[in-house]
Amino acid sequence: MDDKIQIKQIEDVELENPIIFEGLPGIGFVGKIVVDEIIKQLDATKFAELQSDYFPPQVTVKKDGLIDHMKNEFYYVKDFGEEKRDLVILTGNTQATDYDGQIAISRELMNFFADLGADKIFTLGGIGTGEMVEKNRVFVAGNDLDAINEVIELDNTHIRKDEGGSIIGASGLLLHYAEEKDVKAVCLMGETPGFFVDPSAAKEVLMVLFKLLGFEFDLEELDEKIETTLKRLSLNPQFNPNMMEAQQAPQPAPSDDLRYIG
Amino acid sequence: MDDKIQIKQIEDVELENPIIFEGLPGIGFVGKIVVDEIIKQLDATKFAELQSDYFPPQVTVKKDGLIDHMKNEFYYVKDFGEEKRDLVILTGNTQATDYDGQIAISRELMNFFADLGADKIFTLGGIGTGEMVEKNRVFVAGNDLDAINEVIELDNTHIRKDEGGSIIGASGLLLHYAEEKDVKAVCLMGETPGFFVDPSAAKEVLMVLFKLLGFEFDLEELDEKIETTLKRLSLNPQFNPNMMEAQQAPQPAPSDDLRYIG
Amino acid sequence: MDDKIQIKQIEDVELENPIIFEGLPGIGFVGKIVVDEIIKQLDATKFAELQSDYFPPQVTVKKDGLIDHMKNEFYYVKDFGEEKRDLVILTGNTQATDYDGQIAISRELMNFFADLGADKIFTLGGIGTGEMVEKNRVFVAGNDLDAINEVIELDNTHIRKDEGGSIIGASGLLLHYAEEKDVKAVCLMGETPGFFVDPSAAKEVLMVLFKLLGFEFDLEELDEKIETTLKRLSLNPQFNPNMMEAQQAPQPAPSDDLRYIG
Amino acid sequence: MDDKIQIKQIEDVELENPIIFEGLPGIGFVGKIVVDEIIKQLDATKFAELQSDYFPPQVTVKKDGLIDHMKNEFYYVKDFGEEKRDLVILTGNTQATDYDGQIAISRELMNFFADLGADKIFTLGGIGTGEMVEKNRVFVAGNDLDAINEVIELDNTHIRKDEGGSIIGASGLLLHYAEEKDVKAVCLMGETPGFFVDPSAAKEVLMVLFKLLGFEFDLEELDEKIETTLKRLSLNPQFNPNMMEAQQAPQPAPSDDLRYIG
Repeated sequence: MDDKIQIKQIEDVELENPIIFEGLPGIGFVGKIVVDEIIKQLDATKFAELQSDYFPPQVTVKKDGLIDHMKNEFYYVKDFGEEKRDLVILTGNTQATDYDGQIAISRELMNFFADLGADKIFTLGGIGTGEMVEKNRVFVAGNDLDAINEVIELDNTHIRKDEGGSIIGASGLLLHYAEEKDVKAVCLMGETPGFFVDPSAAKEVLMVLFKLLGFEFDLEELDEKIETTLKRLSLNPQFNPNMMEAQQAPQPAPSDDLRYIG
Repeated sequence: MDDKIQIKQIEDVELENPIIFEGLPGIGFVGKIVVDEIIKQLDATKFAELQSDYFPPQVTVKKDGLIDHMKNEFYYVKDFGEEKRDLVILTGNTQATDYDGQIAISRELMNFFADLGADKIFTLGGIGTGEMVEKNRVFVAGNDLDAINEVIELDNTHIRKDEGGSIIGASGLLLHYAEEKDVKAVCLMGETPGFFVDPSAAKEVLMVLFKLLGFEFDLEELDEKIETTLKRLSLNPQFNPNMMEAQQAPQPAPSDDLRYIG
Repeated sequence: MDDKIQIKQIEDVELENPIIFEGLPGIGFVGKIVVDEIIKQLDATKFAELQSDYFPPQVTVKKDGLIDHMKNEFYYVKDFGEEKRDLVILTGNTQATDYDGQIAISRELMNFFADLGADKIFTLGGIGTGEMVEKNRVFVAGNDLDAINEVIELDNTHIRKDEGGSIIGASGLLLHYAEEKDVKAVCLMGETPGFFVDPSAAKEVLMVLFKLLGFEFDLEELDEKIETTLKRLSLNPQFNPNMMEAQQAPQPAPSDDLRYIG
Repeated sequence: MDDKIQIKQIEDVELENPIIFEGLPGIGFVGKIVVDEIIKQLDATKFAELQSDYFPPQVTVKKDGLIDHMKNEFYYVKDFGEEKRDLVILTGNTQATDYDGQIAISRELMNFFADLGADKIFTLGGIGTGEMVEKNRVFVAGNDLDAINEVIELDNTHIRKDEGGSIIGASGLLLHYAEEKDVKAVCLMGETPGFFVDPSAAKEVLMVLFKLLGFEFDLEELDEKIETTLKRLSLNPQFNPNMMEAQQAPQPAPSDDLRYIG
């Protein structure tokens, strides 16, 4: 393993060909919102943590003033969905930002998932439009035609028309490294303006997962977040287009403002 | 070989002192359009592929939703042009973006071409003007005066007047590393505004190659692309000058829009 | 030790479980102003220096035209504050700017402090608001709840409401590495607009330290700097918002203008 | 020696405690103009060349279309100036742009100069003001007070008032590494707007060197360049302030426009 990456096992858990959800911070924090909702509502259990010197050199501050370090976290849920499968969820407060780090960490993640006997991986993210969207569509890509087609039959799912368009960060690289390990992988991308944290896009991605895997839960909290976001936007209708650019790179965890300390 | 670079041989092909065309993504995607047209029209055969951890950490999405990884590709054509030569074509969907990667990959490419017994290399690219151009001139540079003069006798070919001007990326470095291997190398640069994918500039570069090497083919498809581009430009006459800057660095494959996912 | 970092011992000093103050250059140079005032007024003694190839490749120019190299400096004070403790102060004219450098240097600094038998660390910095502030509040974070609560009982101290907000640079990483060494660490962040050197924010941080550690000294000189700063601001009320961005990264020592030479 | 740096000896020359002039590309190309004028007029002889993978991955194009690689070059002159000293001149078409490269190359340069028995080094550069200047002043810094004072007694020479101001690139680092080798070093910085190639600033630096070292030569050619520059500026009085930023980093050789190819 790359010596700038450590995976610390917290609980020794037996998993049977789990499904994997990846939801690291990215555009609109769409993937992260999705998986953090699932972790909370399905009461998932944390069983491992990845730390890395590739992560940004910073800490975050919690409600009580205690700091938290940069990390990716692994959770599991038993008896998930219609088929009562094992589910593993990857979340975190950061992604590596440079090329070497993104490549090394995505490879380690895929190795870790393959060692768990992963059956199929869903990488979850946002796709930035740069402008407000009426209805957040969900775009699909993957390394297996059958897996793509299974999604494309559902409502509100699409294949991108801009052939050659890119998928950056872990959401993209995991598709490629999964292919090298013969693991089926699908990426679901919620359409989002890209310049704010977007629970609406997350909800649409979640709806696709509901239909695909036959699980469901209370959307009330997510609906409240959507309402709060819409209220804020109506109060501040003009966005700084420069923020777009910033959002296109993988990013640390969302914060309500842009204040940093050095 | 640098351990961040792998060249995978797909077909074992016998080539005799081939001519090399390089057309990786760059300003206006001029070089890539040229070589991709030649590959299609001359039905070139792919025989090797270069993958690298120096390439951007992303995947691209194809028409059917399947992903494609970042790569450079080697094709060959037998009995090419007037002299019935062997031709090797380098294309791809990306170039390395950092210095180490550009240097390491250009060196490996040149080693690979030298091992094939390369007789002469044409690196093909664009030269950004930052403003619209009436007639796309073709500029010439190289590591051998005779090779340069052979080109300069043709219509529409020029030597740059801005002494000391730079040629960045593989198009430039291959000229230098070819010199170290005693291989003649010429760079043809199609004049292009630089802020959109430019089939007009590509056509002019292709015309120079036609005359130089005595081959020719149907330009209908390229002419259609030129028409489509001109139509789009007339609808959207104001360009964002910031795009210029982005285009000056080597870039991933063209996409119709600028949407990314993370 | 990382071979791009050297710590040179200047004086062999016996210290007993010292308190540590870190005040390297950062937003508004808040931390640096605080520790440089303490060094001057308490007549602290320099006993070690850290040099590194991670620091920016430049030198600074002193009043007499002599150059100074990039460095971090360690000072000590005996019989400091109410409890007559040993105090170690870290100042300097720069921080590393890239990830590897920030991580490597913060780790070495923490090792150095742990080897000194450090009892508790205060990292001192600024927190940028992007707009003028009436009264500079002081925000608190740390790796120990008791240590945080001891500060939060004092006037003008707060915990940030933007959960997940980041602390970048040495001020943040030292909190994390201190935790790994079981050393209590608290970060005090003076609220500052962030686009100029801010002695007002520094004074508020100093006031918190006064109350916490029971020491005091002449604030006259600092008050003069505050007055000078306010005068300048009133003459030039419009700031370049682009400067904000620059200030968010760790930075070299303050200079009155932005002139460089190459 | 760092394996990304090669110094190739071209001629085996005996030098006695030479004076060194450094004039690599930088702000306003002030240093490079100065040394290139001296090389031409004093008919200096090239005796060594430094190549490096730290240099930007590009080639430049000469008048005849032939390419040139990135390099630093060493020249010598015998019987230079009043004291009939040996003189070594460092010029080139580029500097490393990243930290590692700047540090590694400056160290190797200083080792090379020390091995030649260097007596004293003058690093020559520009200091950007960001606005037009009436009379280009020359600023002085160095690692030796006597050497600084010898310069400061001359007309038009000054010490910067912005204490802590930085000197970046080889012009700065060589002062520091010279100090480590006990070699006296002085930096002369010609005041220049910083957003165009500035022969006026170069002339003022040259005038200081004339007086200091008792040599002189025809300034006619330089005066013609100054006139040409002034003419261009009067035709195009509005500069893009964004260019300033670009000029603050060490840069490749000057070109009349900003066109690149990829």
